[in-house]
Amino acid sequence: MSINIKETVEKMGEDALIASRHLSDLSSDQKNKILLSMATQLLKDCDVIIEANDLDVAAAKENGLSSAMVDRLDLNQSRIEAMANGIKQVASLSDPVGEIMDDWQRPNGMNIKQIRVPIGVIGIIFESRPNVTSDAAVLCLKTGNATILRGGKESINSNLAIAKSLQMGGERAGLPQNSIQLIPFTERECVQHLAEMDQFLDLIIPRGGAGLIEAVVSMARMPVIKHYDGICHTYIDSDCDIKMARDIVVDAKTQKPSVCNALETLLVAESIAMDFLPLIGKDLIAKGVEIRADKQSSTLLGIDSVPASNEDWVTEYLDLILSIKVVSDIHEAIDHINEYGSHHSDCIVTESVDNAELFMKRIDSATVFWNVSTRFSDGEEFGFGAEIGISTDKLHARGPMALRELTSYKYLIKGSGQTKSKMA
Amino acid sequence: MSINIKETVEKMGEDALIASRHLSDLSSDQKNKILLSMATQLLKDCDVIIEANDLDVAAAKENGLSSAMVDRLDLNQSRIEAMANGIKQVASLSDPVGEIMDDWQRPNGMNIKQIRVPIGVIGIIFESRPNVTSDAAVLCLKTGNATILRGGKESINSNLAIAKSLQMGGERAGLPQNSIQLIPFTERECVQHLAEMDQFLDLIIPRGGAGLIEAVVSMARMPVIKHYDGICHTYIDSDCDIKMARDIVVDAKTQKPSVCNALETLLVAESIAMDFLPLIGKDLIAKGVEIRADKQSSTLLGIDSVPASNEDWVTEYLDLILSIKVVSDIHEAIDHINEYGSHHSDCIVTESVDNAELFMKRIDSATVFWNVSTRFSDGEEFGFGAEIGISTDKLHARGPMALRELTSYKYLIKGSGQTKSKMA
Repeated sequence: MSINIKETVEKMGEDALIASRHLSDLSSDQKNKILLSMATQLLKDCDVIIEANDLDVAAAKENGLSSAMVDRLDLNQSRIEAMANGIKQVASLSDPVGEIMDDWQRPNGMNIKQIRVPIGVIGIIFESRPNVTSDAAVLCLKTGNATILRGGKESINSNLAIAKSLQMGGERAGLPQNSIQLIPFTERECVQHLAEMDQFLDLIIPRGGAGLIEAVVSMARMPVIKHYDGICHTYIDSDCDIKMARDIVVDAKTQKPSVCNALETLLVAESIAMDFLPLIGKDLIAKGVEIRADKQSSTLLGIDSVPASNEDWVTEYLDLILSIKVVSDIHEAIDHINEYGSHHSDCIVTESVDNAELFMKRIDSATVFWNVSTRFSDGEEFGFGAEIGISTDKLHARGPMALRELTSYKYLIKGSGQTKSKMA
Repeated sequence: MSINIKETVEKMGEDALIASRHLSDLSSDQKNKILLSMATQLLKDCDVIIEANDLDVAAAKENGLSSAMVDRLDLNQSRIEAMANGIKQVASLSDPVGEIMDDWQRPNGMNIKQIRVPIGVIGIIFESRPNVTSDAAVLCLKTGNATILRGGKESINSNLAIAKSLQMGGERAGLPQNSIQLIPFTERECVQHLAEMDQFLDLIIPRGGAGLIEAVVSMARMPVIKHYDGICHTYIDSDCDIKMARDIVVDAKTQKPSVCNALETLLVAESIAMDFLPLIGKDLIAKGVEIRADKQSSTLLGIDSVPASNEDWVTEYLDLILSIKVVSDIHEAIDHINEYGSHHSDCIVTESVDNAELFMKRIDSATVFWNVSTRFSDGEEFGFGAEIGISTDKLHARGPMALRELTSYKYLIKGSGQTKSKMA
């Protein structure tokens, strides 16, 4: 049985590679037609998908999954419609493939063009919501990449039904066979087989908890783009608009605390702490936020708070909890963020241009904000139309990762018989 | 002892991370001054470096290394001058750091800028020539990156002397401590320690044979940019200028056969094979090239040749050996190259615009040439001024890898109090 899984996964890799060669030949128009046909098919298959999903939901309840987990799993007509609308939205975006990134002439007459091309075959490993099957596959397809998907075992039936529907709908409009494949096994070893298959896979993207990402990083032979935690900071500078600072902090912490761009640690300049902390303390308490405060801020807040430990500075709560620390100045703030943060998204609130520029230069994070809530660290908010995730890596893709980041490039050189011998 | 090495390498990583934060603060002017000071110091230290090099050369001879290997190792006044000139050349190049890659406004008034920043800390593992110590370190420095270098054990004394000289010369002009570090141990375990140190290293670049690259790929937790083989092809299309085709093939095979962009396999369209092969056969024989021919080309060549085996299609000879195959048409040529090639550099010689475009679209290689020798697949020839190598990867850097490819980016977002709550 074990060998069988490995063989099947490898065969999927081989098939995906063949599909990717055909995919790179498709025009933007052809790909958009395929996408629209996939959206239509998904709506047609609504009942079949919901039937498959019922099996997953029943199993989840039987296995005692939390109601939040069951809710994430659950598909209904309107969620499937949302998936289909997502596909139409991707069809409407402009295609980066074929874009000329650079174009120049060399003294010897050669013309060099750098053009965007698909990456090839992308493995996507995800855990929770079955809609990732559709979201990830269509972004890859739009950019001419073949995908091998590996979802969580809780949603295996839903994922298989969605992938089948997408592939079928796509094929009717010319999608190459095996462009979108979902691994039908739930065994953990599948992740290892995928991660070792660098003869077929050009990239692997793990979307999920730290455990999954860590497992993929330690096994993968091909490039991995990681989507790790967001331990996001907001630093309130001495020279700031206090009303704006309060709005930004409350928004970044409470508007949606369960996401990676939510605020986790608030740093406040000593010189403004006495004015700012009592006000923000009240704002946060009113929103039900639990506060973990260092000694100095605890006194100034004037409300009940838990003492912050060192562990708090490196914790992504994803919940209505906020750690607060008073810092002597902007330099201490910058050092704290670069040391304890996760290089995801960090913000300074200030009216000082000098301090804003210093902060933006020195903070080593994917996105650095000046007077904007960190909740805007998001592909949609950037205007990318869709995103596959937010990369915490520095190579290839950093921050919100959208269509452009799902491409590679090649150089095309045109000449008239140039040789090195002639030049020498 | 073993623990000592691990601790020392980790301490180097920690120090490099600190250095990298200071490096990212330097202006282009400061970095250029540092580079020029390094070049001056290198010339001053000529005798010291040659003395250290003598130890390596003596050991190499004692250990019975081939004379080619000893020659690669050997440093003299003029080779050190060449290194110093290389540094001056890098100083004269424009600095990609700080470049605004993109700049746009969102409907909510946010301004988003994507700017180039240093990657951080780069590990470089190399095998042969001691000049790589200087070449790699200065390219990384120019782009604001700290480096940890690990050279081959044959050149350890030379490498240490060069690294010390660069660091010392640099520090005089303001280079942060530990910006350029060379691992002083020759034990193999060092590579593993480096490859596992993803808390400090953002990227690792192995430069050397397949064995070294393979070892790094299987151990590394951080991104690796691989510089694998170049199994380069030239395809002679039916509709081509035969004189140009002969020049290009002879150049690509014989002008410098030991490099990765040299030609290894010649594919010839059946319809032109009878005219072309007898001529190129004579050209190649005159240059001392050994030919491995498939059955059809063997007959047409009209000269002595070795029968080609399947192994020949996947071999990088790096020598005066060429495999030759007759293909029925351009489609067979494309399939052969995508199947057996190494996706490095491939060329079509044709007068047909349609065939050239088809070939350039379909060939999945870093650089695709039309009527130009593959020997031009090179950072210098591209006009990049210098290169750290030629990447055979598709992520982050593909093909000639120069200054731009040694950078990452971040997003800087400026606003006036934007929050998600206000927008909702």
